[in-house]
Order: sequence, then C-alpha cells, then structure tokens
Amino acid sequence: MEILLKDPILRDIGRQMYELIGRLYPICRSITGEGVRDTLEIIREHIPLEVHEVPTGTRVFDWTVPEEWNIRDAYIKNSKGEKIVDFRKTNLHVLGYSVPVRGKFSLEELREHIFTSPEHPDRIPYRTSYYNRNWGFCMSHVRYEQLEEDTYEVVIDSELKKGSLTYGEMYIKGACEEEVLFTCYTCHPSMCNDNLSGIALLTLLAKKLSGIDLKYSYRFLFIPETIGAVTWLCLNENNVSRIKCGLGAYCLGDRGGLTYKRSRSGDAIIDRIAEKVLGDSGQPHRIIDFNPAYGSDERQFCSPGFDLPVGSLTRSPSHVFDEYHSSADNLDAVSAEHLADSMEKYIEIVSVIENDGKYESLNPKCEPQLGKRGLYSKIGSKYSKTENEADEMAMLWVLNMSDGTYSVLDIAVRSGMTFREIKSAADILSRNGLLRKVEE
Amino acid sequence: MEILLKDPILRDIGRQMYELIGRLYPICRSITGEGVRDTLEIIREHIPLEVHEVPTGTRVFDWTVPEEWNIRDAYIKNSKGEKIVDFRKTNLHVLGYSVPVRGKFSLEELREHIFTSPEHPDRIPYRTSYYNRNWGFCMSHVRYEQLEEDTYEVVIDSELKKGSLTYGEMYIKGACEEEVLFTCYTCHPSMCNDNLSGIALLTLLAKKLSGIDLKYSYRFLFIPETIGAVTWLCLNENNVSRIKCGLGAYCLGDRGGLTYKRSRSGDAIIDRIAEKVLGDSGQPHRIIDFNPAYGSDERQFCSPGFDLPVGSLTRSPSHVFDEYHSSADNLDAVSAEHLADSMEKYIEIVSVIENDGKYESLNPKCEPQLGKRGLYSKIGSKYSKTENEADEMAMLWVLNMSDGTYSVLDIAVRSGMTFREIKSAADILSRNGLLRKVEE
Amino acid sequence: MEILLKDPILRDIGRQMYELIGRLYPICRSITGEGVRDTLEIIREHIPLEVHEVPTGTRVFDWTVPEEWNIRDAYIKNSKGEKIVDFRKTNLHVLGYSVPVRGKFSLEELREHIFTSPEHPDRIPYRTSYYNRNWGFCMSHVRYEQLEEDTYEVVIDSELKKGSLTYGEMYIKGACEEEVLFTCYTCHPSMCNDNLSGIALLTLLAKKLSGIDLKYSYRFLFIPETIGAVTWLCLNENNVSRIKCGLGAYCLGDRGGLTYKRSRSGDAIIDRIAEKVLGDSGQPHRIIDFNPAYGSDERQFCSPGFDLPVGSLTRSPSHVFDEYHSSADNLDAVSAEHLADSMEKYIEIVSVIENDGKYESLNPKCEPQLGKRGLYSKIGSKYSKTENEADEMAMLWVLNMSDGTYSVLDIAVRSGMTFREIKSAADILSRNGLLRKVEE
Repeated sequence: MEILLKDPILRDIGRQMYELIGRLYPICRSITGEGVRDTLEIIREHIPLEVHEVPTGTRVFDWTVPEEWNIRDAYIKNSKGEKIVDFRKTNLHVLGYSVPVRGKFSLEELREHIFTSPEHPDRIPYRTSYYNRNWGFCMSHVRYEQLEEDTYEVVIDSELKKGSLTYGEMYIKGACEEEVLFTCYTCHPSMCNDNLSGIALLTLLAKKLSGIDLKYSYRFLFIPETIGAVTWLCLNENNVSRIKCGLGAYCLGDRGGLTYKRSRSGDAIIDRIAEKVLGDSGQPHRIIDFNPAYGSDERQFCSPGFDLPVGSLTRSPSHVFDEYHSSADNLDAVSAEHLADSMEKYIEIVSVIENDGKYESLNPKCEPQLGKRGLYSKIGSKYSKTENEADEMAMLWVLNMSDGTYSVLDIAVRSGMTFREIKSAADILSRNGLLRKVEE
Repeated sequence: MEILLKDPILRDIGRQMYELIGRLYPICRSITGEGVRDTLEIIREHIPLEVHEVPTGTRVFDWTVPEEWNIRDAYIKNSKGEKIVDFRKTNLHVLGYSVPVRGKFSLEELREHIFTSPEHPDRIPYRTSYYNRNWGFCMSHVRYEQLEEDTYEVVIDSELKKGSLTYGEMYIKGACEEEVLFTCYTCHPSMCNDNLSGIALLTLLAKKLSGIDLKYSYRFLFIPETIGAVTWLCLNENNVSRIKCGLGAYCLGDRGGLTYKRSRSGDAIIDRIAEKVLGDSGQPHRIIDFNPAYGSDERQFCSPGFDLPVGSLTRSPSHVFDEYHSSADNLDAVSAEHLADSMEKYIEIVSVIENDGKYESLNPKCEPQLGKRGLYSKIGSKYSKTENEADEMAMLWVLNMSDGTYSVLDIAVRSGMTFREIKSAADILSRNGLLRKVEE
Repeated sequence: MEILLKDPILRDIGRQMYELIGRLYPICRSITGEGVRDTLEIIREHIPLEVHEVPTGTRVFDWTVPEEWNIRDAYIKNSKGEKIVDFRKTNLHVLGYSVPVRGKFSLEELREHIFTSPEHPDRIPYRTSYYNRNWGFCMSHVRYEQLEEDTYEVVIDSELKKGSLTYGEMYIKGACEEEVLFTCYTCHPSMCNDNLSGIALLTLLAKKLSGIDLKYSYRFLFIPETIGAVTWLCLNENNVSRIKCGLGAYCLGDRGGLTYKRSRSGDAIIDRIAEKVLGDSGQPHRIIDFNPAYGSDERQFCSPGFDLPVGSLTRSPSHVFDEYHSSADNLDAVSAEHLADSMEKYIEIVSVIENDGKYESLNPKCEPQLGKRGLYSKIGSKYSKTENEADEMAMLWVLNMSDGTYSVLDIAVRSGMTFREIKSAADILSRNGLLRKVEE
C-alpha cells in the first residue's frame, strides 16, 4: 500500500519511530533478562517509564514467573574451527531461552537441536522454548542442508537463574479515572515489525499525549508477551474496572493496510471507534472478529474472567506478513511512512475517545433557522448548495439526532460522514447556542 | 420506466391530475402571497379545503412568519428598450422573494443579481432568497453570456408587507381519531413535477377518500415548504400524538421509478407498509434511509422533538431528476401515466393501513380441515395443486401465523406473498368461521 | 451428488435400509387399512414398535378419523376383454381411497376418472381423494392418449367401512424425560423415496439408539400423513411439553443434497443443530425457512396452538426431486449410499443433542498454562504450530468462551470449527482439570 503523508509533524514522528527501531534492533530480548532492561532504558530517554521487577517464582494465576535468562555468546564450530553459526551475527540464531550447553556433537545429534524454515530457505526462523528446557540453534535451511558429517563444537554461554521479570509502565493522568490502555510486547529479539514497531509507536504516542489536557487517563504497558500480560493482570486485578477500553499495538510498520481485531464482545466502544476511524480514513483495511486462538495479549485481556474491551490494531496479520518471525523482519521490512500512518490512526482513535459525547438540540421541534445565524446558504433551491455543503449536511444531521441518546460517533456512523465532520458541526452549533452537551 | 396501467379508473384519475397541473402551472407561487391563495382556490373546486391565514410576525418555534410577497411585473430592458428578461414569459425569471427594485444598472452591477445554471446552459434555474433581502433575475446561461456592456433598466414591481402565510388543510373523519397525514408543498412557482404533481395527487386522493367509510381519519396539508410545516406543527403541537403515520408527497409525475424514504426511526409502520406496497408492485423502486440533510418537510415532522412516523414517497430523487429546479420541469416532464402509477401506490398504502389487522385462528391446534369446507383441492398429492394454489398457500400461511401476534402485513412479509393475497385469504377464512379478528 | 462413505458400519446400515425399502415397496398403503398394518409388521421385525388403532369416527381436533379403506383388485377392461389398466401391476394405478365401482363406461364417462401427468407422459402419477368420495385410475399420459372409443368394464374391488387408523410408535427412555421426536409417514403406496426412505431411516435409527445410554428420551412415530399427526397430537396433547425438539424424516434416499427446513420459530435448538451439522459436513446443502404451505407433518407440529421446535431434514425438496409422486419414484430413485449419508446426518444430530452442554473454565483469568500440561506445542513462535494445531485452537476457543453462558454448539458456531472439534477439546480440558461442566 502506497502512503502519502500530508502532515509534516506526522512524517517527523515516523522518522523518530524508525530511528528508535534502529537503536533497539540489535538488542537480544526475551521474556526476561538484561535485553528487556536495556530496551526499557532506551525508551526512558523519551518517556518517564516506571520499571517493575517481578521476582522469579511469583505465582501469577496459573503461571509462575520463570527464571531470568541471559546469554553472552553462542556458536557452532566445525572440526576446522570455523564458526558455522554465530550468535554475534544475529541473536535469532539461538533458540530463545536455551539452557547453557558446551560440548561436542555429531551431525545426527546436532540435527535434533536445529530449527529451520524450509518454506523460506534463506531465512533464519525465530523460535523459542520458554517452558520446556531445551537448547537449540536456528539457521537458514540452505545452510542447514550444506552441513556435513563432522564433530561439532557447540557453545551456548547462557544462564538461567533466579532473577525477575521486567516490564515498563507509564500512566498519564487525565480529568477522570477511567483509563485507556495501550499495550505492546518487548520480548522479541531482533525483529523490527514484530514488535519494535509497536514499542516505537507507543513510546512516541505516550510522549505526544504527555502534557496535553486529557479527559481520560492513559496507561501504556511495555511487557513480555503472555507471561507479562498475565503478570500485570494479576498484580492489577483490582484496578481493571477502570479500563474504559484498550488496544494491543504490534506489527505496525509493514507495508500492508491496517487490521483491526475486535474485542471479545465484538461491539465494545473501542470496536466501534476503531472501525469508524479506519472507515473514515478511506484507506483499504481489514476488520476481523475476535479469535482467542491467534494474536497476542488481547487473548489475556479478553479472557472470560476479565472480558475487557480490548482489541488490537496492527497492519498485516501474521499469516499475511511474509517476513513474520524470521530474519527477514529487519529494518527493510518497515518504513517510516507506514509507521507514521499507523500513528495517525492511533492518534485519531485517541481523538475520538476524547471528543465523543452526546448533545441535546436546544430547538428540538423542527429545524432551527440556520439562515438567520449565517449558517446556511443565502440563495436557496440549488441541489448542490454551497461550498459549505458538507458543513450544512453535518449540522442537519447533528440537529436531527441530538436528542440526548445519540453520540457524535453514533451520528457519524448513521450519516456516513466522518467523525471529524460531525464533531466540527456539533462545535459550530454549540458556539451558536443551538446545542448543549449532555453531561454523562 | 414504461408503465402499463390496466385500471381505466386509474387512467382517468391520471388524466385529471395532469389537467389540474396544467391549470396550476402558470401561477406564480411563493411561500406567501396571492399565488398560494389562487392555487388553493383551484384545489377547492375539487375538495372542501379549509384555508388558514397566519399573520406575518407570528412566532413559530425558532422561526417567524415572514412578510407577504406579491409581484405584478418584472423585467430587464437594454438601452434599446428591448425586454431581455420578462417575468410575464415565466415567473422563474425572478429570484423568489425579490425586494422591489427600479433603476439603471451597468452590466457589472447587474451580474451580481443574475443567477444561471452553467451545467444546463439552456435552462432558467429556480432560485429564491427568502430570509436574506435581495433581488435578482434567473436566466439561461446561454442568454447570460450574450449580455453586452450597456445600461440596463431593471424593474421588479414586487411588494413585501405585513400580511399572512396561507395554507390549506382538509380533514376526513374516520371511525377512530388516529389519523394519517399526507402533506405536500405549495410554494414552488411554475414547475410541474416539483411540486404540482404532489398537489394534484393529494387533491385527487382526498377526493377519492371523501365519503368512503374509513377506519382511520385522514389529514391533507397543502403548505409552503419548511416555514409551512414549522407553522402547522407549532399551531397543532398538541394534536400530533394522533398521527398514526404520514407521507410527504412530491415529485410524483416524472418517468423514474418510485422512491420511498424512511422515517427517522426506520421501522415505523409506514416504513413497513410503503416498502411492502412497492415490493408487491413488482416494479423497480428505491428504498432509502432517512436523511435530515435532504428532502422536504419530513425533516420537520421527523425533528427530534416530534419524531413522527412520517416518510416520503416520490418518484426520482432530486439528484436523479435531471429537470430538477429549472424551467425544464414543465408539462413535458410529467405524464398522466406516471401520475396515475404514483396514485395507485398511494391508494394501495391507504388500503393496507385500512385493512391490516391481527387475527386468531379458531383451530390453532393442527390445521383445520379445509377440504370439508370446499377450500382445498379435491384431488391430493399433486405438487402444483390447483388453479387456486396461491389461495391455498395464503390460507395455510394465515392459519399458521394467526396466533394474535402477527398482523396481515407481518404474514405477507414473512410469506413473501402480497398483502392482497394474504388479506383475501384472511377474509375467506373469516367467512368460513376459521378466523376471528383480534380487537386492538 | 456423489458420496464417498468411509464408514463401513454406515455402508452396512445403508444396505439394510435399501433392503427394507425393497420389502415394503410392493405393499399398497393408504392413510388407513391393511397396507399400513403389513408395513408396521415388517418394521416390528427390527424394532419393538407399539401399534395403535384409533377407531373410525374418533374426533381429533377439527378432523374425524375416516373409514378404513382396503382394496383387493382393480382394473379397466376394453370390449375385447383386455386389461388396459391393472392394479396388480402397480397400486399407483388406483386413485387412493377410491370407492368401489363395478360397471360399464363410455370413453367420455371414463375420462372424468382418469388422472395423468402430461409433463411426464411415461409415468403413472400418484393421486388420492381422501375426503371427497370419488373413484379413479391413474395412468401414463401416453397410454391415456391411445384410448379409443369403446365401452369399458371398470372394476374397483375396494371397501370403505368402519375400522381404524393404524399407527406405530416407539419410545426409548433416556436419563431425562425431555424427549426428541422423530416422525415419518406411512401412508404412501409404492414409492421409495417418498416415503419408504423415511420409514427405513427411522427404523434403523431407532434400532441403533436402542440399548445405548442416552441423556434424552427418543420417540419415533410411524403415522399416516396429516390425519396421523393430527390424531397423535390430539391423543398426546398433554405430553407435548416434553418435546425438546423434533425432525420430520422423509425423502431421504434420492441423489440430491440434504435440505433442512426450519421450525416455525426459525431459531429453535433443532434449527441451530441441524444447520451446524450440515455445515460441518462440508457437503452442499440447503437451509430453507419454515413454510406452512408446503412440506409434511411439521405443519401440524408447528401449528400455532403447538408451535413445537420441529423441523424436517430431507434430501431434495419435492419441486426438485423429479420423480416426485409418480411411478418413477421406484427402487432406482434411491441408493444405499444416499440413505446412509442421510443416516449419518441424523446420527450426528443425535450426537450433538446428546453431547452439547455448557462448561466453565476453572482458570477464567488469563489463559491457563497449557504447555506445562503437555497440551501445547513445545517450540513456540511458529505461525503454523504443530500437527495438533486444530486441537490447540479448539482448546483456546473453549477456554475463552466457557464462562457458563456459551454451549459447545455456541462455541463451534462462533469459532467456525466443527462441533466435534470443539467437543473433543472440551473433553481434553475437562480431563486435565481445566474445565467443569455446568449442570443445567
């Protein structure tokens, strides 16, 4: 999808996101360990993130916070002493959470511990083994098929020990306690779209919202996938009722169109808002139903014991994003323009959340006379009224629907006009004494 | 759309409507003034219309009844004394509600007061300036472009003064006080489809319903657009709860198919009836949602303070009717056949309103034995039963659905059979003691 | 529709059904009489059917049990003494319920009593005259057109006298009193699809369910069409509240796809189950709305005084089944494979009825950790997870939706997975202590 960004501020934010991705790209992240801490430290250069450490062994619902994993080096050497696989070239080479290993292996023994992706023979796949102790290497299928009978020296200089699970959280206080939750995961190693793009987007969104007068409060989570969501939900169980709605942010830099995945209920306010914002954009996009068998942490937020109004807004779904979970998800897989386009939609969603509301017409019986207030074209009876025709239409929609039961969003959906057009008309009418905001 | 009318009575009504349009065509109407009175006087030759006069200055909701406008003559003469624009040729030449003017103007000065329609260069457009004091002329764009530098003598011999807004109303008393409202507007000058067609249709519909035994009462309004609806609603505010449903009647003579525009709620009884009648007709037609930004007085009847079950039934919508608001909307733009076809649908709607109702089967447990009553084919087991197969099907539908909760209309909609077929079956079954009408 | 049956047991049942049809085919059945008794006697070789006799003259709602009809012989002889129509060749030759006749008739007189099917000139049509005393013969149109002026000897050696209406009923007691009703009609003479197929299917289904532990009770009716349903409903009026749901079984052996006709309400549990079973099959099929003007005894079960959740599951509808109600509906019109395929769907429906239920996740807050229970793939982050991917998806759906309000069927419908997949996942999760069945 080609994108033409008109807004120079947005273009600049796109560039900042891309730069941030570039800085975070080389770090070896996992669900615990120093890679996550290094990542959060870089994010803290932009926003005042609070960093939480949850000790290994903490029970979180059905799960237990695992040992902390760190890795210094890893390689496979052939008998000539040549490193045929080297962690220092890319951290994807090591099976995530590999236990330490140091020894000699025949090719046959080694094969059990090597993971490749035959359908993409040139790429190194991304694989992990968090809860089943194992070690392994990932490599391109091409290279794998060239391996000869030999005695291989294998070193994984990793460590699994008591430590903690690290996550970042930022809270922006608005006028009311009801809060909007944005969440992304920080556990993936060197891959850009999945999910440095989500990290970069939420970092710069949080930065943008800081210091603005906001109606709602906003919370940003930077957590490891699954175990992080489980942990946060367990520690914050008593406060989730404050969550008005939320979005999972991931895979936001690729060149595909946007995809909104609905919350479990399918008709939560976030569902209606995200669908309208994507519709108003005029860009091709996908709306997909909630599905607990795919996706990310919306699965935890939408588990039946929480059932929170949380959807996810991504670009290409994983089965469409060709570079998914492989070394091909590098800095070429994302672009500043597409990151900025994603940001635009997130900002627009915040704008709708902040600006939606119900109004009451102060002249509910018949239309008020717009002409005498200079709000209507002066020469009547043309089909195409004036250059302000859209404004007039929007005003008539707002006046007709504003009986206190329909919100700006409702009116925008019913009229087929954009949220911005309807909101603008409501503002004009309010300024002219024709409309009163209904207190909620 | 080609129409073949089988009913000679209907054909005759079509001719009468066309004749009435012909008589009303030359009159210069506006939202107030003698043109409206002359129009109502001619309608009174057909039906005993009550004529109301509402004084200038009367406050009606957010509006004020304006001054009365009358015009005797208007023209533009060039320096050779030739009338280059002459109100006597067609009243469309004058901007509706023009203030009087008498003077000499350069071409440049004159241009500010001339309105044309460049997209239809041969036509004189229809323009008004009711609530913004102005004067002007409308002319064909072709003629406008031929105007030369000159000193022009301009005369508009009009008058704006205290007077009244004039409207007509006819009420036909039925068995119950609940009433059906038909409304059309009388303020447009020499244009046939918009809206002499609506005037002619309601005049002859009211004539047809007079003296018939009716279940519901019927009210017909002949009012100026917008200000007339506002005025009538303001004066009759306490009685609108009697309105069971209503229809705005306009643009009913052109050659396009019928268009039903839904009421604000979208599922009022009039919506279901009009959609079924148009569907039963088998003719191509349009159903469009309520839209407060286009249309006519349904916008007032459906304003949130009233929210009445009022739709509109027209032929082509204004953006499809090519001759809209121009001198091309003349006697060639409408035909007796299409007027009669529109009338047929209005009569059918009245018929459904009058004949709908709920029944209760007197043999609700299993089907009653139709055969022993001579209501079923004598030889069984053919797939295609008898020449009365439609009757048998309709009877079985009525018997199955008549548990007191479904109306004839409901059954017709669910079965996909026409209202007439289902109603006829209900009548046969009632006569045979198999069905009882449920009192409402 | 070509069918490949993988299940050898099912193939065997198909053959048994076809054999049973073969045995019942020659018998001359009608709504009363020895033909019905002979038919029930043969069914009793398979299942312990209870046979009921309801005396002629018994009032059943709006109907009266008619006289019993029996026939020994019937023919038309020409003046040369040749039998040109002979009941002994096929019982379809006689108009069902013909009164006895013995006499000589001119061709002109005879024509009034001969029924043919000009659109299928080679076939003998099936015709009856139950409630209008008449006599007649059915023959091919080809033969009919060859008839010459002659004096014909006509004999119908039938008898109409006080007797009884005969029907069969079988009840299988399950754990609860709520019962599932299967009904077929036994009144059609020598036609295989309509409805020896339904008789054969219900006979073998009842046999299969006998002696199995069942949650619900099951009732099988073998009744004459219409009058039998009316009679049974009248005699069992006080017990119909036990009926959880039901199906009419007819036309189940032809080569078309399956057709489910919804119950009157359209969203009864049987409607949802039958639609899901047909959908899960992956085979082309039809779902049609309830229609009281066509079909069979679901018209009585769904009459407004009962409104029972009873649909019908057939193969081709009568207007699609070309051999309908004619001598072409013979042993070639049905196949063992298609009978078995129909049986498979009936068994599957019973399976869903028996196995549906609601569950509650014992870990409703976030997903439980499937990995530590060996229920999840060991190597993470592949898009296509494991060979057990469908199982994993189904488990995640069940865990997410099992809050006590959604049934297995609900989850299967929402997820788009089959009932079997979802039920299997629920079983695995229950065995692993992750799910608890909700008592109803």
